[in-house]
Amino acid sequence: MAVEIPPLVAPSRLRRRGGLWGECLAEFLGTLVLIAFGCGVVAMAVAALPGSGRTEGPTTFFLSAGDWLLITWGWAFAVVFGVYVAGGVSGAHLNPAVTLAFAVRRKFPWSKVLPYWLSQVVGAFVGAALVYAVYHDAINTFDQAMKGPKTHGHTVASFSIFGTFPAPYFHGGYWGPLVDQIVGTSLLVMLIVAIVDLRNTAVKANLGPLVIGFAVAAVGMSYGANAGYAINPARDFGPRLFTFFAGWGDLALPGTEPGSYSAYWWVPIVGPLVGGVVGVLVYDLFIGDILHIRAQQDELPEVGRTRGSASDEE
Amino acid sequence: MAVEIPPLVAPSRLRRRGGLWGECLAEFLGTLVLIAFGCGVVAMAVAALPGSGRTEGPTTFFLSAGDWLLITWGWAFAVVFGVYVAGGVSGAHLNPAVTLAFAVRRKFPWSKVLPYWLSQVVGAFVGAALVYAVYHDAINTFDQAMKGPKTHGHTVASFSIFGTFPAPYFHGGYWGPLVDQIVGTSLLVMLIVAIVDLRNTAVKANLGPLVIGFAVAAVGMSYGANAGYAINPARDFGPRLFTFFAGWGDLALPGTEPGSYSAYWWVPIVGPLVGGVVGVLVYDLFIGDILHIRAQQDELPEVGRTRGSASDEE
Amino acid sequence: MAVEIPPLVAPSRLRRRGGLWGECLAEFLGTLVLIAFGCGVVAMAVAALPGSGRTEGPTTFFLSAGDWLLITWGWAFAVVFGVYVAGGVSGAHLNPAVTLAFAVRRKFPWSKVLPYWLSQVVGAFVGAALVYAVYHDAINTFDQAMKGPKTHGHTVASFSIFGTFPAPYFHGGYWGPLVDQIVGTSLLVMLIVAIVDLRNTAVKANLGPLVIGFAVAAVGMSYGANAGYAINPARDFGPRLFTFFAGWGDLALPGTEPGSYSAYWWVPIVGPLVGGVVGVLVYDLFIGDILHIRAQQDELPEVGRTRGSASDEE
Amino acid sequence: MAVEIPPLVAPSRLRRRGGLWGECLAEFLGTLVLIAFGCGVVAMAVAALPGSGRTEGPTTFFLSAGDWLLITWGWAFAVVFGVYVAGGVSGAHLNPAVTLAFAVRRKFPWSKVLPYWLSQVVGAFVGAALVYAVYHDAINTFDQAMKGPKTHGHTVASFSIFGTFPAPYFHGGYWGPLVDQIVGTSLLVMLIVAIVDLRNTAVKANLGPLVIGFAVAAVGMSYGANAGYAINPARDFGPRLFTFFAGWGDLALPGTEPGSYSAYWWVPIVGPLVGGVVGVLVYDLFIGDILHIRAQQDELPEVGRTRGSASDEE
Repeated sequence: MAVEIPPLVAPSRLRRRGGLWGECLAEFLGTLVLIAFGCGVVAMAVAALPGSGRTEGPTTFFLSAGDWLLITWGWAFAVVFGVYVAGGVSGAHLNPAVTLAFAVRRKFPWSKVLPYWLSQVVGAFVGAALVYAVYHDAINTFDQAMKGPKTHGHTVASFSIFGTFPAPYFHGGYWGPLVDQIVGTSLLVMLIVAIVDLRNTAVKANLGPLVIGFAVAAVGMSYGANAGYAINPARDFGPRLFTFFAGWGDLALPGTEPGSYSAYWWVPIVGPLVGGVVGVLVYDLFIGDILHIRAQQDELPEVGRTRGSASDEE
Repeated sequence: MAVEIPPLVAPSRLRRRGGLWGECLAEFLGTLVLIAFGCGVVAMAVAALPGSGRTEGPTTFFLSAGDWLLITWGWAFAVVFGVYVAGGVSGAHLNPAVTLAFAVRRKFPWSKVLPYWLSQVVGAFVGAALVYAVYHDAINTFDQAMKGPKTHGHTVASFSIFGTFPAPYFHGGYWGPLVDQIVGTSLLVMLIVAIVDLRNTAVKANLGPLVIGFAVAAVGMSYGANAGYAINPARDFGPRLFTFFAGWGDLALPGTEPGSYSAYWWVPIVGPLVGGVVGVLVYDLFIGDILHIRAQQDELPEVGRTRGSASDEE
Repeated sequence: MAVEIPPLVAPSRLRRRGGLWGECLAEFLGTLVLIAFGCGVVAMAVAALPGSGRTEGPTTFFLSAGDWLLITWGWAFAVVFGVYVAGGVSGAHLNPAVTLAFAVRRKFPWSKVLPYWLSQVVGAFVGAALVYAVYHDAINTFDQAMKGPKTHGHTVASFSIFGTFPAPYFHGGYWGPLVDQIVGTSLLVMLIVAIVDLRNTAVKANLGPLVIGFAVAAVGMSYGANAGYAINPARDFGPRLFTFFAGWGDLALPGTEPGSYSAYWWVPIVGPLVGGVVGVLVYDLFIGDILHIRAQQDELPEVGRTRGSASDEE
Repeated sequence: MAVEIPPLVAPSRLRRRGGLWGECLAEFLGTLVLIAFGCGVVAMAVAALPGSGRTEGPTTFFLSAGDWLLITWGWAFAVVFGVYVAGGVSGAHLNPAVTLAFAVRRKFPWSKVLPYWLSQVVGAFVGAALVYAVYHDAINTFDQAMKGPKTHGHTVASFSIFGTFPAPYFHGGYWGPLVDQIVGTSLLVMLIVAIVDLRNTAVKANLGPLVIGFAVAAVGMSYGANAGYAINPARDFGPRLFTFFAGWGDLALPGTEPGSYSAYWWVPIVGPLVGGVVGVLVYDLFIGDILHIRAQQDELPEVGRTRGSASDEE
């Protein structure tokens, strides 16, 4: 691990041209798009679809395996298009855990980490506000119709449109969801660095963002229900902050679910930050360093415009 | 916003060769294909699948999150293949909101806007007629079996095969669905201009139409159930006009649902037209103009044959 | 229509090398793969999944919209991989309607039409036999558990694993399913000729077979439940012939469903053959001939190895 | 069959550089990723999703056709990303049946077969341990809630998260599931060798891993419920070994289900090994040898970095 890998995700011409301010605007808009689609699809599954029929909707809430696919495809495309929107300018991290992992092992400048993080959280906050603006009628109707415990008139189900809570089978334990977030994010970041690794099988034709979205689908399909697969501190904290102001109160911050959690908010922040670094380290350990392939640096083709795609143009 | 972006979606050789008449034929056929598949998949979910078993079908109508995926994949592929059919000739707008946004910010000739709009609406009308020709047996059987209120013997559910109506939780309000249409269409157009932006991560290998279809899937998954995600004035008005003549009457035009809306027809026209312009403006503001990257014009590779794909050929 | 379009689907080097016998073997294996996956996925949905749990399975049969997606994705991938297996040798028609349409409008040699058709039907027959070999335990268990009318101990549902029957709402009429087959196949062939049209937006990177599979998914999602979307005479007749010998008797041939159809077998043959020709004619009329783009012949890049992909090598 | 086909899956530069030890590490990590996602998605469908709601979960277990899609997409992406992680180093077999088939017909060195096999099984074992670490709370809650027979407190359903068992309609017979495994694996390997065959329609732009994942989806959709589509000896035996130690006991090894099977463990090993060889032989017989295209060897472009993609770079 003493050996350093050269930066595969070099700043593109557009990024240099725009400067840090342009990059932050792109991270902002990209994360806004991510959350607008991501929280939007949960709003669909939780509140809008059950309420859109002409007959009475259900009064309890449950997602089957087939229903869960809507959630996972929706979040996958949220990432795909967040990356397509911001990719050419900022590299489209859209996720503080990715930014941190790239700083630790891909020479992303440490001086940009905090500006990126801030842009991501603000973008996520505004994205959540947009979802609320579109869906507040559906959400209020849903919360009124539901049976079961409520906080300030809101249910955990309607909160889950925006932020994450772990499953009841953890009985309020923090260790289980924390492990879940570390594993999920380490897998995500491991896949991202594989998909853009030009020494490996880097996706071409600028389809990297699509395949990265499929990686998020994979995490959601296989590691989504334990704790809502935040796997991204901004994705959870931005909307959580919004819902705190929008009426969910301590259900959002500090993240209190009566009978189980008293302050859950830090888990989807700490878990992903740790997991992202673990992911890139494991990849570099098993696929990278041990082969000492850093010597190939000069043979590598020029890096494309986004983290999500190896360029195949001349 | 005073700075103008150069036309990224330049007319291809085929388009010039064909002239406006050829372009209008392509927009007609492309929109026909769009509606033939799009309204077709709703006919499947609403009427054909419930009626195709050998046992009695259901007597109420409800789509789960898993069922909704059929709608969204179906409409996504409807767009994909509408674009593949028309892309090389007309650029495959297939949507008056896209045509308007391209005229406002991508130098699409204003003189072609009305011919494109007309071709799109006529194509959508004929596409709806084709769906009715194939599914009228299924639709009539469905409407007879359903419980609940009917207009001229038809249900809102069977109308929803062709046109859109907002969810009951809006209680007849116009502002909610209008915001929904503006947000949905602005996201759609923002993604389209990102996917084909050669200064960003434009999709290559002529797979742009596929990724644009996935963008429509994303809008449908995350913003579909509030108001049926028309996000395209022709997609709603063409079939609406057809159903007006085919027996749905004022349920179609002016769009009257007893107890809620008296004249809904204008919402899926005005909302998308406004939203499309908003979408391209937001993109240019956050990703485009601020970086003053218009200076790169001469460095850009030649634009490919369709809006949906950056060409990677020689 | 008097103007002839140059052959876009030129014989590849491999095809010439192999000769007609090699092409027929490829059509045989490709269609076998098509049916092995296609009828296999219906066997999954109808018989294997309901019977694979450790509790009693259902005693009636119904597919929701979400369930239908398994059918459509399964058939889509069946086509994708049938084309990948045979594409480089025979062009991977795998469908007599495609072969006929290519003969009528793409200069496919008329002398090869019958050998191709025969190879396709034999491949479909053997593919159906393979499905029966794998699933006969599941099918017999299913047929015994089901309620409702049976023929020779078999249900229409188990027959639908192999061949097609129209929905009950046609009440035994032939015209409705015939129109359905003509429309569905004309859309399919129109999309195929668009996807490989080098003057349009032909898919590159040898991903044409994937997008053609998605076209079949689109037809299945939007036109699947009326009459089972055969849209391919070999796909229906080969398995139908097999089930005739395997015990379904007149349910298979001549296609008798008590109370409705007396001889349905010819509809999924005649409808697709007519529809395929209609599809290519409509495409050439609206996108092709009218633009007189045949003059571009010499400018076109060399055609790739399969109907499903424009080559981007060289 | 006497004619030998030249190696299409040549060792890449990275593989040579890393040596056998590097290749084994890549096979280990790739198979670990495969199982972490693959068994993870079954854990989601079986235990986590039913337990993640705020109301009581179900007490029996059944997957509809729509639910099954979660399983098949999850396993498909598991393969996709296992191949992207390991592809550039080891070729990403991740499956002893693939390794054997490549040794028999693609000149993969016999001396590497056992090291590859061992790496794959160890990776699968560790991947299963990771799934258990993340999901043991969900699994225990599930097993306690379920009705029906249990072994050591565990159900067949919770075992099916890790290993495979055939459907009840085989009534304990070995021949049915064995045929199922041979057919499923032969189809899988036939598709893999087609997707990477540069004389056929080999997928480019480094998207081969994606299409290979779709091939696994196809097998799962069409041949998944008979016997759980192991189609990979390491995928079944590694997790089976883990569950043996983790408390499932003879349910895992030797694979005893009271009332039906006494020792099922060898079927998902022998079936895939036989099937893989059958698959490559059938492909070479119908698409390869008969055309005597081995003579084209020198004309072939250089093989890309992974089995899953033909390189289109310079």
